Amino acid sequence: MKFTANKIGRKIPEELFEKKLIPFQGKGKGPYKVRKYAPKIRMRRPGEQKILGSIREAIKAGELTDGGTISFHHHFRNGDFLLNMVCHEIAAMGLKDIRLVPSSIQGVHKEILPYLEKGIITEINCGTSSVIADAISHGKMERLLTIRSHGGRARSIENGDVEIDIAFIAAPTVDPYGNINGVRGKNACGSLGYAFPDAHFANYVVAVTNDLVPFPNNPISISQDHVDAVVKTDKPIGDPKGIVSTTLRITRDPKNLKIAHDCVEVIKASGLLKEGFSYQSGAGGTALATTNFLRDYMKSKNIKGSFGMGGATEALVRMLEDGLFEAILDVQTFDTYAVQSLLNNPRHIEIGASQYANPQTSGCAVNLLDTIILGGTEVDLNFNVNTSTESDGRIQWGMGGHQDTAEGAKLTIIAIPLLRGRIPIVVDNVVSVNTPGENVDVVVTERGIAVNPESAFYDTLLKAKHLNIKTIEELKRIAEDLAGGPPNQPKTTDRIVAIIEYRDGSVLDVIYQVAD
Amino acid sequence: MKFTANKIGRKIPEELFEKKLIPFQGKGKGPYKVRKYAPKIRMRRPGEQKILGSIREAIKAGELTDGGTISFHHHFRNGDFLLNMVCHEIAAMGLKDIRLVPSSIQGVHKEILPYLEKGIITEINCGTSSVIADAISHGKMERLLTIRSHGGRARSIENGDVEIDIAFIAAPTVDPYGNINGVRGKNACGSLGYAFPDAHFANYVVAVTNDLVPFPNNPISISQDHVDAVVKTDKPIGDPKGIVSTTLRITRDPKNLKIAHDCVEVIKASGLLKEGFSYQSGAGGTALATTNFLRDYMKSKNIKGSFGMGGATEALVRMLEDGLFEAILDVQTFDTYAVQSLLNNPRHIEIGASQYANPQTSGCAVNLLDTIILGGTEVDLNFNVNTSTESDGRIQWGMGGHQDTAEGAKLTIIAIPLLRGRIPIVVDNVVSVNTPGENVDVVVTERGIAVNPESAFYDTLLKAKHLNIKTIEELKRIAEDLAGGPPNQPKTTDRIVAIIEYRDGSVLDVIYQVAD
Repeated sequence: MKFTANKIGRKIPEELFEKKLIPFQGKGKGPYKVRKYAPKIRMRRPGEQKILGSIREAIKAGELTDGGTISFHHHFRNGDFLLNMVCHEIAAMGLKDIRLVPSSIQGVHKEILPYLEKGIITEINCGTSSVIADAISHGKMERLLTIRSHGGRARSIENGDVEIDIAFIAAPTVDPYGNINGVRGKNACGSLGYAFPDAHFANYVVAVTNDLVPFPNNPISISQDHVDAVVKTDKPIGDPKGIVSTTLRITRDPKNLKIAHDCVEVIKASGLLKEGFSYQSGAGGTALATTNFLRDYMKSKNIKGSFGMGGATEALVRMLEDGLFEAILDVQTFDTYAVQSLLNNPRHIEIGASQYANPQTSGCAVNLLDTIILGGTEVDLNFNVNTSTESDGRIQWGMGGHQDTAEGAKLTIIAIPLLRGRIPIVVDNVVSVNTPGENVDVVVTERGIAVNPESAFYDTLLKAKHLNIKTIEELKRIAEDLAGGPPNQPKTTDRIVAIIEYRDGSVLDVIYQVAD
Repeated sequence: MKFTANKIGRKIPEELFEKKLIPFQGKGKGPYKVRKYAPKIRMRRPGEQKILGSIREAIKAGELTDGGTISFHHHFRNGDFLLNMVCHEIAAMGLKDIRLVPSSIQGVHKEILPYLEKGIITEINCGTSSVIADAISHGKMERLLTIRSHGGRARSIENGDVEIDIAFIAAPTVDPYGNINGVRGKNACGSLGYAFPDAHFANYVVAVTNDLVPFPNNPISISQDHVDAVVKTDKPIGDPKGIVSTTLRITRDPKNLKIAHDCVEVIKASGLLKEGFSYQSGAGGTALATTNFLRDYMKSKNIKGSFGMGGATEALVRMLEDGLFEAILDVQTFDTYAVQSLLNNPRHIEIGASQYANPQTSGCAVNLLDTIILGGTEVDLNFNVNTSTESDGRIQWGMGGHQDTAEGAKLTIIAIPLLRGRIPIVVDNVVSVNTPGENVDVVVTERGIAVNPESAFYDTLLKAKHLNIKTIEELKRIAEDLAGGPPNQPKTTDRIVAIIEYRDGSVLDVIYQVAD
């Protein structure tokens, strides 16, 4: 296998599973297709119906064959039941060598593990966490996991890097002619934004619902002219309670509260926190605490922001309701309070994944962010951030909009504790790279704040004497002193089990199977 | 030139202007492309702006060249100023051989006549009325007028029969990043539905506005990820007063009121007028009167319909407000009362042209219509309907959604007076065909009602003894008796100046230059 080093020094094979890989060359310099993907034109004559009796009928109607590709959205997060349901059906039908293109694999999807082991599912394209991620790390899937950001996923679908045979949409409500929304019904999950590219670019689209409503459904998030089949099932497609996963509990840890507090201090010092401010935070507990500190400060100073983006949470919605933001742009709704807001507040606006973060459109919303607060499992001396692998080399997470918002936002803050357990988080080289350091401005830890010397905010932030500024090397040293040394290098085999794409489709890094 | 007769006996040349023509073969049997058009992928990096200083800058940025194609929507109808503005600019820039793809040409667009005569505009794809239509009839445009229905236009854009270089969108409000709606601003025009295919499938999209609003605009009808440039101009892009054209005044003519009344009688007799009824009417005065009679009847019988579609008018909105319909699907808003409704009433839903009427999607809304009331300039013994040409052969009108709704609806009623002036309207053969007779169920005139023997409602309606049923031949005879004979045959040359496409892209008819 021939390797080339990419811009961040990671060795990328020239080819993998008969696909040529393009090494990452820096933001804005990636591969670029000339034209969008052209999905099949379908035709539905007057009098024809779309209601099918079962998921199996829909799989047949969509003409899925061995080697085919199916997609899902994960707005139910750890409460999603549809992906499992469809995979069980595919297995029962004897199909094999199927590629899954969900917007995320969560813990709840552990049920599909046997299908990886049996060659029924041989490839996954998305962020993957928990049991399935672990299994892939241990070499249990035949082909490759391709880890993409939310914007990168939208791009890959719109430009045809991924051709979807059937998109399955878990539809909280849908009418018999296929008009879908996520804000009504007993299983309302809010925005369906990640499913928009699937609905618009798949070759066959199936809505599966527990709540079939009379035509025309209202509002219409995904419209009938893109939806080929409607399946009503009594088995729940999702549990809205599962939307709120553990990542969504606000931190009470004093260390993390200190980090959250300092994030707001950094934003203040940057000069961005003024009339028209725009903001996104990740879904971690520290990020939520930052949002709350930010709210208090904006209120006290009477600062009116432009938009908040999410992952829409109750915390963000309350800022909208308090007039601290003009609008929320919502690609994914994180709790039931925010679902109600999306239904009732016209200034809470549903957006699709391409409008949110696809770098190859006429303009995505992350481009307009002032500040993003993000997490990570590791950060290194080049400010590269790892979100997917643990220090021992196992894949444990996806990356959400990490890459997208980091490139888009003016000020990108990585908020992480210096240690996790006894393991240093600031390291020489991260195990694998999800977001290249060129997109990272500041790393905020409980023991100090490092500013990337390449950041446009470097001079400004270094003048802010109340900030506990350290170099990234100093942070690393402190972490190692506390932990008694750097983390052990992961033990891996020479088999590549996953690649991490940059949002433009170039390859940032590869991940090797761990040694048992 | 070689000709083939199509299914309705019209002689269609095999080729015209180097393009092969496919003769109409009957509904559902037309040409069918396998894949959608793949527009250019555009890329907008963080920090890049979309605001341009003038329409000229936008034309340059969109790289329009001689021979290029530009599109427009006509939601301002006879109050649209943008098409003229852009054409003046194109002429001033010295561009030539430009194809216009508006959703309609109205009287207000007479300003572009010199550009047809000078070869600056050499081809038009749309319904065309008034001065420009007349000029084309007299051979003043170099190449061809292609007359398409609203659904046919959406199809032609989505399947790439028409490739748009630049789509110009008259945007009542737009934010600096290109999010557009038509329901706010001093020049609100309501739905922007006809512009949806343009926005989604053009290779460059320009929003021109008088009301630039802060990001993010709300609601978002056309989203930023499709819009490349935003131009603010002080010159009005449109006058909402122009939306209400003469076609929209309710009739007071006793003859037309009789027709309207009998339309409702036919709908009642058909058995369709019950719970869940769906309805669309055209924009003519008789159709509006029908809507009002229908309202009174539904109210009196406590019938609750499913949806009304339009052309949304105050008459239709009041039925929604009275609970006579569950929802309005709105591709084009016809008066300011309906604009306010679209802004404020969540059950008044904006839909795009493909969702409305594109026959080659996963399912368009006309497929779900129970009844449509339509007009026409002529109808013939085969129930073919002419909407585009007058009896003297001159092109005077487009066809809107005539073809689409006629094919989609269960019951298609043509409501026309037997004479217009002294000219019989029921004739042996219409001058040109916009809607083939196979899609027409009933012709309602002030002197009798003819039911198409091919109609599924033939037996039912013939049993309704209170209806003044006559054969179409009888209606023709009465008309000729009143007029003193059949209309004169139009005098034409042998040059084809226009073709009428069926909604699937096959050719229904051709129109010849009139002899001076």
